[in-house]
Amino acid sequence: MKKSAGTPPANTRIERDTMGELAVPSAAYYGVQTARAIENFPISSLRMPRSVIRAMGLIKRAAASVNYSLGLLDKKPADAIKAAATEVVEGTLDAEFPVDIFQTGSGTSTNMNTNEVISNRATELLGGARGSKLVHPNDHVNLGQSSNDVIPTAIHIAAGELMQQQLIPALTRLQKSLARKAKEFDKIVKIGRTHLQDATPVRLGQEFGGYARQIELGIQRVKRAQDALSEVALGGTAVGTGLNCHPKFSSKVMAIISKETGCTFKEAKNHFEAQSAQDSLVEASGELRTIAVSLMKIANDVRWLGSGPRCGLGEINLPETQPGSSIMPGKVNPVIAESVTMVCAQVIGNDVSVTIGGQAANFELIVMLPVMAYNLLQSIELLASVSNNFAAKCIDGIKANEERCKSLIEESLAMCTALAPEIGYEAAAKLAKDAYKSGKTVREVAKEQKVLSDKRLTELLDPWRMTMPGGPVGSAGG
Amino acid sequence: MKKSAGTPPANTRIERDTMGELAVPSAAYYGVQTARAIENFPISSLRMPRSVIRAMGLIKRAAASVNYSLGLLDKKPADAIKAAATEVVEGTLDAEFPVDIFQTGSGTSTNMNTNEVISNRATELLGGARGSKLVHPNDHVNLGQSSNDVIPTAIHIAAGELMQQQLIPALTRLQKSLARKAKEFDKIVKIGRTHLQDATPVRLGQEFGGYARQIELGIQRVKRAQDALSEVALGGTAVGTGLNCHPKFSSKVMAIISKETGCTFKEAKNHFEAQSAQDSLVEASGELRTIAVSLMKIANDVRWLGSGPRCGLGEINLPETQPGSSIMPGKVNPVIAESVTMVCAQVIGNDVSVTIGGQAANFELIVMLPVMAYNLLQSIELLASVSNNFAAKCIDGIKANEERCKSLIEESLAMCTALAPEIGYEAAAKLAKDAYKSGKTVREVAKEQKVLSDKRLTELLDPWRMTMPGGPVGSAGG
Amino acid sequence: MKKSAGTPPANTRIERDTMGELAVPSAAYYGVQTARAIENFPISSLRMPRSVIRAMGLIKRAAASVNYSLGLLDKKPADAIKAAATEVVEGTLDAEFPVDIFQTGSGTSTNMNTNEVISNRATELLGGARGSKLVHPNDHVNLGQSSNDVIPTAIHIAAGELMQQQLIPALTRLQKSLARKAKEFDKIVKIGRTHLQDATPVRLGQEFGGYARQIELGIQRVKRAQDALSEVALGGTAVGTGLNCHPKFSSKVMAIISKETGCTFKEAKNHFEAQSAQDSLVEASGELRTIAVSLMKIANDVRWLGSGPRCGLGEINLPETQPGSSIMPGKVNPVIAESVTMVCAQVIGNDVSVTIGGQAANFELIVMLPVMAYNLLQSIELLASVSNNFAAKCIDGIKANEERCKSLIEESLAMCTALAPEIGYEAAAKLAKDAYKSGKTVREVAKEQKVLSDKRLTELLDPWRMTMPGGPVGSAGG
Amino acid sequence: MKKSAGTPPANTRIERDTMGELAVPSAAYYGVQTARAIENFPISSLRMPRSVIRAMGLIKRAAASVNYSLGLLDKKPADAIKAAATEVVEGTLDAEFPVDIFQTGSGTSTNMNTNEVISNRATELLGGARGSKLVHPNDHVNLGQSSNDVIPTAIHIAAGELMQQQLIPALTRLQKSLARKAKEFDKIVKIGRTHLQDATPVRLGQEFGGYARQIELGIQRVKRAQDALSEVALGGTAVGTGLNCHPKFSSKVMAIISKETGCTFKEAKNHFEAQSAQDSLVEASGELRTIAVSLMKIANDVRWLGSGPRCGLGEINLPETQPGSSIMPGKVNPVIAESVTMVCAQVIGNDVSVTIGGQAANFELIVMLPVMAYNLLQSIELLASVSNNFAAKCIDGIKANEERCKSLIEESLAMCTALAPEIGYEAAAKLAKDAYKSGKTVREVAKEQKVLSDKRLTELLDPWRMTMPGGPVGSAGG
Repeated sequence: MKKSAGTPPANTRIERDTMGELAVPSAAYYGVQTARAIENFPISSLRMPRSVIRAMGLIKRAAASVNYSLGLLDKKPADAIKAAATEVVEGTLDAEFPVDIFQTGSGTSTNMNTNEVISNRATELLGGARGSKLVHPNDHVNLGQSSNDVIPTAIHIAAGELMQQQLIPALTRLQKSLARKAKEFDKIVKIGRTHLQDATPVRLGQEFGGYARQIELGIQRVKRAQDALSEVALGGTAVGTGLNCHPKFSSKVMAIISKETGCTFKEAKNHFEAQSAQDSLVEASGELRTIAVSLMKIANDVRWLGSGPRCGLGEINLPETQPGSSIMPGKVNPVIAESVTMVCAQVIGNDVSVTIGGQAANFELIVMLPVMAYNLLQSIELLASVSNNFAAKCIDGIKANEERCKSLIEESLAMCTALAPEIGYEAAAKLAKDAYKSGKTVREVAKEQKVLSDKRLTELLDPWRMTMPGGPVGSAGG
Repeated sequence: MKKSAGTPPANTRIERDTMGELAVPSAAYYGVQTARAIENFPISSLRMPRSVIRAMGLIKRAAASVNYSLGLLDKKPADAIKAAATEVVEGTLDAEFPVDIFQTGSGTSTNMNTNEVISNRATELLGGARGSKLVHPNDHVNLGQSSNDVIPTAIHIAAGELMQQQLIPALTRLQKSLARKAKEFDKIVKIGRTHLQDATPVRLGQEFGGYARQIELGIQRVKRAQDALSEVALGGTAVGTGLNCHPKFSSKVMAIISKETGCTFKEAKNHFEAQSAQDSLVEASGELRTIAVSLMKIANDVRWLGSGPRCGLGEINLPETQPGSSIMPGKVNPVIAESVTMVCAQVIGNDVSVTIGGQAANFELIVMLPVMAYNLLQSIELLASVSNNFAAKCIDGIKANEERCKSLIEESLAMCTALAPEIGYEAAAKLAKDAYKSGKTVREVAKEQKVLSDKRLTELLDPWRMTMPGGPVGSAGG
Repeated sequence: MKKSAGTPPANTRIERDTMGELAVPSAAYYGVQTARAIENFPISSLRMPRSVIRAMGLIKRAAASVNYSLGLLDKKPADAIKAAATEVVEGTLDAEFPVDIFQTGSGTSTNMNTNEVISNRATELLGGARGSKLVHPNDHVNLGQSSNDVIPTAIHIAAGELMQQQLIPALTRLQKSLARKAKEFDKIVKIGRTHLQDATPVRLGQEFGGYARQIELGIQRVKRAQDALSEVALGGTAVGTGLNCHPKFSSKVMAIISKETGCTFKEAKNHFEAQSAQDSLVEASGELRTIAVSLMKIANDVRWLGSGPRCGLGEINLPETQPGSSIMPGKVNPVIAESVTMVCAQVIGNDVSVTIGGQAANFELIVMLPVMAYNLLQSIELLASVSNNFAAKCIDGIKANEERCKSLIEESLAMCTALAPEIGYEAAAKLAKDAYKSGKTVREVAKEQKVLSDKRLTELLDPWRMTMPGGPVGSAGG
Repeated sequence: MKKSAGTPPANTRIERDTMGELAVPSAAYYGVQTARAIENFPISSLRMPRSVIRAMGLIKRAAASVNYSLGLLDKKPADAIKAAATEVVEGTLDAEFPVDIFQTGSGTSTNMNTNEVISNRATELLGGARGSKLVHPNDHVNLGQSSNDVIPTAIHIAAGELMQQQLIPALTRLQKSLARKAKEFDKIVKIGRTHLQDATPVRLGQEFGGYARQIELGIQRVKRAQDALSEVALGGTAVGTGLNCHPKFSSKVMAIISKETGCTFKEAKNHFEAQSAQDSLVEASGELRTIAVSLMKIANDVRWLGSGPRCGLGEINLPETQPGSSIMPGKVNPVIAESVTMVCAQVIGNDVSVTIGGQAANFELIVMLPVMAYNLLQSIELLASVSNNFAAKCIDGIKANEERCKSLIEESLAMCTALAPEIGYEAAAKLAKDAYKSGKTVREVAKEQKVLSDKRLTELLDPWRMTMPGGPVGSAGG
């Protein structure tokens, strides 16, 4: 299709593949197939994430080791590949990966991009010229592999490692922050709210304890997702049969990578499942958006509890992070919480993209891999960074507005609930209604009407006692 | 709307709650609060699913037992409640549950509906009149409970039990059907397809083995979902504090229900998490839609492999279930597979409804419970029935079209792949191109050009060998 | 499944199609193909909605008229079909449509069901026996039609008509209710809230005016959806070519139906677009979920503004519709608003099901029609009924809590905004901070500090003035 | 974090806002509020898109003009602002906009970022020092505006303009390409496929004509989306009341911007609707994902029609764009079509993020603006670039495989359909079945069995005739 007869353009070298010749920048480590992909996919500015490039490097490095140990690759090219792949792992060659996310659905362009970069860098390390294929991209770097097993494997590794290195630590950070607040606020009794309406009291610490538990469960969800991702396609090659691949290749490679990443990865029990579909990515994404749902609830509660300063609920004060308005002093907007809710919206949408991708699998290969990877990995990274930031810039600095909490409790008509077991539901209801009409507190009306002795009233109208199970038994309402 | 001074309408009785009097059909077991809910929510024809009504009965029955054993309820009302609740469990009173799904977000109307039905039926069993509250809906039937803990608990029980009784058996049925086909088709070599394009061979049995593995993983996903649902809110009462509830109530009730259902349910570790949010429903729904994604792939593959009869892929024949067309004889439409894909579309949408519900939690209670329950439970039931039907009416009856499979393989240019390790990539590529241009098979061209001895060609051009790992090593392509 | 040699079971008649014989209930108007569909699709309890059955009747009736007028059908069968189809239109034969939603993706089973019911009823009207095909289901009732053009046409008609008959009136009802409240509350100044935080004042009527405008735009959105649905597939027959269909058939049929329904429907400009895909359903669903998004906002705002009664915002009082709790008197839960938010969650999920269906189109026919129809039509009906109910049971009865609105305004620190243009931003900011620290109002502090004359302070600190454009110019903040 | 007493760090200047001092890079045009936002939101690497920055520049420039013309701003600062804003419009200052997408939900940080950059650049143009606020970010640049009206306005402008400049031209390009192919392939008769099964013939040109119509309707959908976005919030300032904003400000600004962009924008009819919610973005996003649904169908059809080269449908040949595999010569993967399907998956997910954002509106402001903007604008840009690329690299180069099309038609059993009106349905059915069993064509069997004269058979068995309406009338099947 292309053919360039005469001299190549300045600062380029001519490379050749089965479709003909193409000029590649002289300085590029990538080669002709990458150049074609650049030309073919001028679609977005989105590139394959760092985590995938790193995982590609891990695979190619381990593959070279294993191929050498199985006697399939000589020491010299193997060592050169390992050195070059190490640079890919470490990120120093990231600029050499210019291929768009919206490329071939198998991610073949990214696999060939990796093969070419490592080939040229390894060739260079052995003293060869770029493009000379002294270390061959296919025959050496891609030995025993196919895009069709390498790319899904790289996605699993990237996701698993990001979860381990970023998401679990971030959620742990947030969980601890929330748990600390749960302890700090354990003595602060406040009004409970169901249906947004005043209900019986809870302690502010109980609320934060609930949030902490949500995140604790979120960490378990990440681990389930990691578990779902632990089986990898490597070893299946083109269609899952493992044609041209040594039977021990995959398990040996994955043993190395498991050790290097500290995450467990293993050869898929069934290679046809592992590369003809990517249900595991869909499942993992489902866990992530569940975490987003938890964060949405916590961020919204925090925003609401801190609403005001005077005309909202005002039970907590959020740390001030930036002027809320150029016009209204004292206006602290809950901007950190808002950034959390926006990440949640993103993650929930990303999950649908992953699902759309997942349901489009046909025959021996699902060709929605890059878009699934992009969305899944973005979700992991966003959840991780926003969890850290939420903990550091919002939760850690929350102060309880104790006075406000106390005054609302006293005003609450739900106080009458505590009297019901002694004076009966009907009488208690009448008290509440009288209080509502007169604008007085339940305590005031109860004293006025002398429904019980002052001493007994004080005992029963104790909000603290109402925040624990095992009160006077009766219908618990709601 | 409120007061009815004169005589009640015919065939009604007058009941009273804190809002005033209302006429209730004389024959109804339900009472005034249910009647108000009917009036308030004339929104859809959708009712709370049978599985939730059953779970409500299980809870109320176990609650009566436990309240009696804790000395909180006398034997007579306890026994009557147990008898009435048993009828609710068994479904004979289903017509007494007329409340819309789109009701109060806490499901309070359904809880009160249950309390009223059991109250009246129990009262009747003790010789009292309906509406007389001899057994009281709140003080007796709802003792130690709140809608806010009962409803989410009922949803967990309903979902867990449906998964156990319906979904796991159905998926197991389907998995076995697919595994049987994998074995039956183990010897049938066919063309593999990646990117929808001809690739190296696979065995038809390997494809079905992949599908079977997808469903095997699906069963694991259901179990994860059950695990996610095992913690229940019961014991938290109105706001999670457990006010007015005996500390041992929840664990004792759940022990009974676990035994009755054969599923494990236990009191939530943190009651504030358990009722202020429903992340576990969101997580469970994520597992379900992952199963939908698996089924979509399998159903589509099956449709495609069976496409034809003459102008499609035609590698398998699907059982004929109904005339496909009034005009074209021999047209067998893959209608069972289509019904599967439509269920998948439904389940994926349901999952979004559950997620929208889940992210809307505020403070001590999430008020999206009925809509979350409706969608989650519908997904379980649809996946179960469609999996059974898919196995019975489609997979079980699939026949391989061996001739077709064999002829496509022989025509495939990908046959040259097997020669590459011996004659080199370039020479193999040339063979393929020559074959493509001349319309001949690779075997024919290779023989003509005598690239290898006939004997060696026969050995290498053996599709069967190409369906196994450990072939001649080289780049595996893709 | 296939052959039934001996005597048919009691109360059945034997019918025959190209697959063989099958027993059909003697009393049924439906026939053998419907019986097969019942057997093939025991998947859900969901049936094709009334609106589609009605539309099928409309099509079959108009088709008989047109086929007669074109000389393709004799008067006797034409008249009988018209009479029978009228019964289908009117709903008296609904029990004869037992086919599951999850059937063949083309809806062929529903088309044949309709053909059979009308055939048998028409045959009966002409004195023939059921099953005798005096009026033939295919040759007469389905004349010039195919499931592939009839079913999408019926969905468009059903949706368009439901929008016209139910959704637009319901939204109009709600819009008027909101507009009335906007007028009623026009004089009530209250605190504005951005980021949930106190901002400059608005009038309660302005808030409701915004809601009314959202619904007004919603009505426009329905009309856009109707416009998107106005082109129909009828006339394309099996694959869009119109084979075996008179060129004038579709336009004549649609003219009749347009007149009967009061909605505009016309033959598709391009039949291949019209039946190989259903983008118009996806578009229409997008409009519906946009309306759901509007309703979600309004219902949430209303819930929040009415939160309390004492520990929330409490600026409005919602009408009491049912006791909120068995334990807490005075607790009015915003249950009507909650039912609205649950409908919105449903509609947003339904939209995803429609989208999943829409993106699965292949070649000459999209085989996701019944699931798309089910979700789209459910969304229309739910939005209609919930809008009516929201207006009648919630919005109409909202009362403003004027005292509360006024007191919050006076307390608000944002009052200082009005002084900024005269005393400068810095001085105004200092006032606000002093007020915040001292717990006083801005007015009190300003008077104490004599920043302006009392007269001027009164003029400037007028919240009413702050609810209109054109104030003293400066940065408008936010 | 707050106070910086001593000397500022090297290469920084100290700026001050109401929260205290902060060091800002000396070379930066942005100021203290931007610096705080950088610190507050280290969440993603995603920045506000170019199109929004451009729109912000358009607004600030027009605002300066209008404020000058209304006598609210002096000529000197007005001119300087216009000059500086022009640089923002043109993109030369893009590096000065480092704020994360996941920031405050109002986009205030981006508004202040813009105000600061323009303030400092304008100050510099007037000879002042950066940070000296000679031209003030709030009092001058933001005059008569609030983030709360500016940011939604900028999003509408950005989206409307991208649709005009990129999406409509790209879709037009694609539509023309498809229409050209429709014409080119008008004479090529091929098998139609419904349910993936062989059906009556269509012309390849008719298929492409259907695709062209889908895109033509897509262009109409974009225009509807533009219409939905034409009303803007500008003029509402902080809460929609327009406080501190000249009543003519918005209409005058939007007149200028309409002229500059060639798109119609106008002041919102109701400012409370326009900034308390963003239903219009949700609606517009719905149109975009409908276009994605269309593209998904077309891209999939094209992939399928081109599947093979030998073992698929093979009715068309897609242009070769890159080697499909390192192992299989002649393997052309439909990579361009795959990139289209991946964009569709992204856009459908983005739509859900927009919807999640839209349904989260509270009171006077929706604080999900940046995430809604990000997803909506990404969808527009992706659809535009992928449509262009699809046309140029795939559709334009498609060749019909006429031989293949013809041979499939002849083999098809559906040929018998054309005989039915003359020999009857039953006889035609028998022919098809005989053909199926014997492996012969319908033509062969019909000749053998002499069901009609050879001449008549030739007339009737003419596939071309079958691709047009008005054939021999009968039931049209399906």
